[in-house]
Amino acid sequence: MIIILKRNANKEKVENLKTELVNQGFKLHLSEGTEASLIGLIGDTSRIHEDWLKANDVVEDVRRIREPYKKANRSMHPDDTVIDVCGRKIGGGSFQVIAGPCSIETKEQITEVAEDVKRSGAAFLRGGAFKPRTSPYAFQGLHEQGLDLLLEAKKATGLPVVTEIMSAEHLPLFDDVDIIQVGARNMQNFELLKVLGKIDKPILLKRGLANTLDELLMSAEYIMAGGNEKVILCERGIRTFETSYRNTLDISAIPMLKKKTHLPVIVDPSHAAGIRFMVEPLAMAAIASGADGLMIEVHNNPEKALCDGAQSLTPEMFDHLMKKVDKAADFFHSLG
Amino acid sequence: MIIILKRNANKEKVENLKTELVNQGFKLHLSEGTEASLIGLIGDTSRIHEDWLKANDVVEDVRRIREPYKKANRSMHPDDTVIDVCGRKIGGGSFQVIAGPCSIETKEQITEVAEDVKRSGAAFLRGGAFKPRTSPYAFQGLHEQGLDLLLEAKKATGLPVVTEIMSAEHLPLFDDVDIIQVGARNMQNFELLKVLGKIDKPILLKRGLANTLDELLMSAEYIMAGGNEKVILCERGIRTFETSYRNTLDISAIPMLKKKTHLPVIVDPSHAAGIRFMVEPLAMAAIASGADGLMIEVHNNPEKALCDGAQSLTPEMFDHLMKKVDKAADFFHSLG
Amino acid sequence: MIIILKRNANKEKVENLKTELVNQGFKLHLSEGTEASLIGLIGDTSRIHEDWLKANDVVEDVRRIREPYKKANRSMHPDDTVIDVCGRKIGGGSFQVIAGPCSIETKEQITEVAEDVKRSGAAFLRGGAFKPRTSPYAFQGLHEQGLDLLLEAKKATGLPVVTEIMSAEHLPLFDDVDIIQVGARNMQNFELLKVLGKIDKPILLKRGLANTLDELLMSAEYIMAGGNEKVILCERGIRTFETSYRNTLDISAIPMLKKKTHLPVIVDPSHAAGIRFMVEPLAMAAIASGADGLMIEVHNNPEKALCDGAQSLTPEMFDHLMKKVDKAADFFHSLG
Amino acid sequence: MIIILKRNANKEKVENLKTELVNQGFKLHLSEGTEASLIGLIGDTSRIHEDWLKANDVVEDVRRIREPYKKANRSMHPDDTVIDVCGRKIGGGSFQVIAGPCSIETKEQITEVAEDVKRSGAAFLRGGAFKPRTSPYAFQGLHEQGLDLLLEAKKATGLPVVTEIMSAEHLPLFDDVDIIQVGARNMQNFELLKVLGKIDKPILLKRGLANTLDELLMSAEYIMAGGNEKVILCERGIRTFETSYRNTLDISAIPMLKKKTHLPVIVDPSHAAGIRFMVEPLAMAAIASGADGLMIEVHNNPEKALCDGAQSLTPEMFDHLMKKVDKAADFFHSLG
Repeated sequence: MIIILKRNANKEKVENLKTELVNQGFKLHLSEGTEASLIGLIGDTSRIHEDWLKANDVVEDVRRIREPYKKANRSMHPDDTVIDVCGRKIGGGSFQVIAGPCSIETKEQITEVAEDVKRSGAAFLRGGAFKPRTSPYAFQGLHEQGLDLLLEAKKATGLPVVTEIMSAEHLPLFDDVDIIQVGARNMQNFELLKVLGKIDKPILLKRGLANTLDELLMSAEYIMAGGNEKVILCERGIRTFETSYRNTLDISAIPMLKKKTHLPVIVDPSHAAGIRFMVEPLAMAAIASGADGLMIEVHNNPEKALCDGAQSLTPEMFDHLMKKVDKAADFFHSLG
Repeated sequence: MIIILKRNANKEKVENLKTELVNQGFKLHLSEGTEASLIGLIGDTSRIHEDWLKANDVVEDVRRIREPYKKANRSMHPDDTVIDVCGRKIGGGSFQVIAGPCSIETKEQITEVAEDVKRSGAAFLRGGAFKPRTSPYAFQGLHEQGLDLLLEAKKATGLPVVTEIMSAEHLPLFDDVDIIQVGARNMQNFELLKVLGKIDKPILLKRGLANTLDELLMSAEYIMAGGNEKVILCERGIRTFETSYRNTLDISAIPMLKKKTHLPVIVDPSHAAGIRFMVEPLAMAAIASGADGLMIEVHNNPEKALCDGAQSLTPEMFDHLMKKVDKAADFFHSLG
Repeated sequence: MIIILKRNANKEKVENLKTELVNQGFKLHLSEGTEASLIGLIGDTSRIHEDWLKANDVVEDVRRIREPYKKANRSMHPDDTVIDVCGRKIGGGSFQVIAGPCSIETKEQITEVAEDVKRSGAAFLRGGAFKPRTSPYAFQGLHEQGLDLLLEAKKATGLPVVTEIMSAEHLPLFDDVDIIQVGARNMQNFELLKVLGKIDKPILLKRGLANTLDELLMSAEYIMAGGNEKVILCERGIRTFETSYRNTLDISAIPMLKKKTHLPVIVDPSHAAGIRFMVEPLAMAAIASGADGLMIEVHNNPEKALCDGAQSLTPEMFDHLMKKVDKAADFFHSLG
Repeated sequence: MIIILKRNANKEKVENLKTELVNQGFKLHLSEGTEASLIGLIGDTSRIHEDWLKANDVVEDVRRIREPYKKANRSMHPDDTVIDVCGRKIGGGSFQVIAGPCSIETKEQITEVAEDVKRSGAAFLRGGAFKPRTSPYAFQGLHEQGLDLLLEAKKATGLPVVTEIMSAEHLPLFDDVDIIQVGARNMQNFELLKVLGKIDKPILLKRGLANTLDELLMSAEYIMAGGNEKVILCERGIRTFETSYRNTLDISAIPMLKKKTHLPVIVDPSHAAGIRFMVEPLAMAAIASGADGLMIEVHNNPEKALCDGAQSLTPEMFDHLMKKVDKAADFFHSLG
């Protein structure tokens, strides 16, 4: 970390700052230039916040040299993390598809979709029981009853299940869930992240609509710092000025996250697009850019879906897509 | 709500859609044009989600005519909502200042700051006990002990207090808090909003970093739909491409929110800027644009602050600012 | 186009508006609802600007039903436009790669790179003679001399050339250039677009950093309205809040543009990323999402490049990339 | 400027880089830490582009310490620049209002508006003859004839005039124009900026919709580097995700620009909002935040305006606004 001092900074105050930094265990490296006087901090700066330094009267600005995340950092852990869920590996060269409806609606719906997506090759079943909806007047999910239906579909098909948690209070209901999802709007619900850091279950952490990659990794770090290192990251589109689609899929995030971290990274093209016809090209782009998996919305009757029907594929469309997904994953695997 | 049908849409499917909409209680108004065929929906469309319609195969797009929020909508409630907290009115022409440190750190700190800001004319004391921090390694607040210290400062000064809640589980600790704050990162923590909708206490709802005004109002609607209509909105800067300041204060939000809703709207220039010298000009701009109040960070020793020191004013600076705030509020009040 | 009237709009003024619209040749379709009263405009609304209607005192808002671009609109021209440049087809299923240095620096540099990229399979040579640089103190390009060197490299290799124009005054120098590029910063330099609309030469139009797809298509429409229908669109990254890369490649733009327009769409992963290691995954994603081609920066000595060296590939890296590009283009072509 | 070296960077290559930097006239300051090895550059780094350094194989990243603009930098020129136009001072404590229609339409229109705004206290008349319109089918301005009408209105009223240039070729027509405006879309039309740097006439430079403050200052630097130091900056709203208004007025830009530069800064609330009722609160906010002036759109018949009627004030509204503007400017001047 580099501290840029103000021109004409009070010398006594500069000395006080230096003393305090030394007392905190840092070595200092000083540099006087025509442009500026600098203090370089040598030591573990992940526990220092830039703002604390900027509050000091003699400090003009601060430049961080190393990222503030540690456990999620690839430089600390060069090999890919591989998460094994019921024998299905996520990360490290495996490619997995999670599929299912946005919301769990009825026993028939979730079981039928589960059987369909299994037949087409999905490795995991998704389905929401607790639904974060912008409007309080929209369908909010079946809650506990929805989780029960999801677990029945799991039993019927053998597919491990992924579903979203919206409050730490609901955690006891998630005992038989295989992967717990944290939605985009909760990516910085730190109280929830802390609770999930203390359990032994994979967490699928979705990037917030306006969160940087470093913030996503800091949220992963919240979970990992608690002891749970099974974190799967998910890019699902960010918010920009463009209005032709619901969100803008940040495909550049895939290679950059793979460089910054050892954690697996998957892509949700359904939420990113919000429009059915875009799911396939975005899924292909995700595979091509190096993602470790996909999360796809599938509904047996999208026109009657209680949530997100516009982006849901029918089982037939999904089957068609999976044939291409398999070929593309093989192609890029062999391309290296 | 206007439904735009696809060119060459299957006629039978269009008839099915129309039947379903009629069954849901809507009157339909049909229009055939060279550009497109349209269906206008007449009735309460706040309970319909555009996505449900877009999922239909014959629908090309949907345009909403009326906003989906009702209780927060000024068209349903033309007069300003005025919230009375311990005799201090927020909204409807009154102007109030909330001030205090980002984090509660020690008994001396919070009590000293409380006395200082009271002397300068602040109407409310703020201070965080639960702190949402990007890094798990940063100071997370004093939690329960912090709330105790805040309530002691309240007792010592008589100032009503505002503090942030991060989880519904902590609600029992907030009994003597006068205004409960929902932070920007929790603006769409819908489970928390639902819980706050069932209590009888004013809620200060901060706009999320990348949330539209309509989303902010939908989050207010979550609280109001539960029965708690005492919601105060707070603009605190949005995330843009500009990096010279922490966030970009969206000053246009003030007049637009005042048009859309009857709820009071205040501004937090400290978080918007992240830099001390900008607090005054942004506070003045907030008053000038019609805000109902300000929330300002004040610390008795910003250089030692455990959080956000860079944007905190010293009590002396705050006193200086308050003299200007009072004059400016009077000036704009008399200007009309 | 749908005009939403204000509640309690003055009836006489509404009648005046209706008369004026009828006089302009529109048929009107009226709708009275509990939500709002609407006027639907039937006719060619591409010549009406929403703002003109919004200026009217009785109008609350306006919703456009059809896009305002015509010549660029796929609904008017369902087949892909194929642009033939010296026998190389762009669009309609062909896949082409444009490669070369950011700036033309010396005769040796541009000729050497031209030979290298030709050998690896590039179909076009790129190189900038007029460089739009943020700083006036940065290298601005070799101008006329640079164009001469580019044309020498064209002669030496037979590769058709692509280069950027920054002012209509320079057009006479571009006689032997095969494709004229309009850079992102000039996407809405309408005076330049109008001049380019009157020539008979393909134009490579780059999307501006903060321009919507509809604005990009309106800029294409400027050129096409002048008579020049040979427009190639180029996605090169947009500006967002993310700072890990220079720009955010908007991969969703590819399938959406292919739906909105018949014009070819290529991708520039080099400028989008600004970092060398990301060029390959982004290039693969572009192919996977359906792009018609790529534009890649190659420099024989990136560390000495006068511009954008950080994102330039060496000829060896480019050769390696082209082997993958060819395979991926074939793979996705056969996948359908 | 700080160069962060890669871990395990090749030592010979590092030595080569150091030699090259020394040859370019820089003094180097080296720092070896546990986090990273750094090279500090001491000397004038405004002529070095970060990308050139990042292209080097041994460089991981680069952090700039000082801004790359010089002539526009307040640190080089602590006093406010005051630009005198026909005896009206812009900058340095004076407050000026520029008013008039978006487009010049007829002799009657521009003269009538000129007389109206003069009577209400505007110091300058604005009016567009060359109009940058998103659509080629929209009214493009009266061009040369429009400038003639503007100059007639100048003669009739004595008001100095401000009007936009869209191409350097049109410059000869601007001889009698008092301030030449560069629009937001041309902020990085560097060829135009260079031409304007060689004339002796004030330039009103509008910030681009997605340009940072540093980019705005670099564009000012283009003009100033050519010798023309009479640059007036104008904030007119930026592009964000919010859709309730056309653009988001970046009010924070005012105090930050005043800190970064000595140039005058004015605000255009009309374009920022795009909606009439927001012009007044945004104008007040601009004054309160420290702006040196305002640019306001006024039309004698907004409902018939050929451009931007929705945001134009009538002369009566403008007169009403100016009474408040005068009072507010006086109030904040006396507040200090």
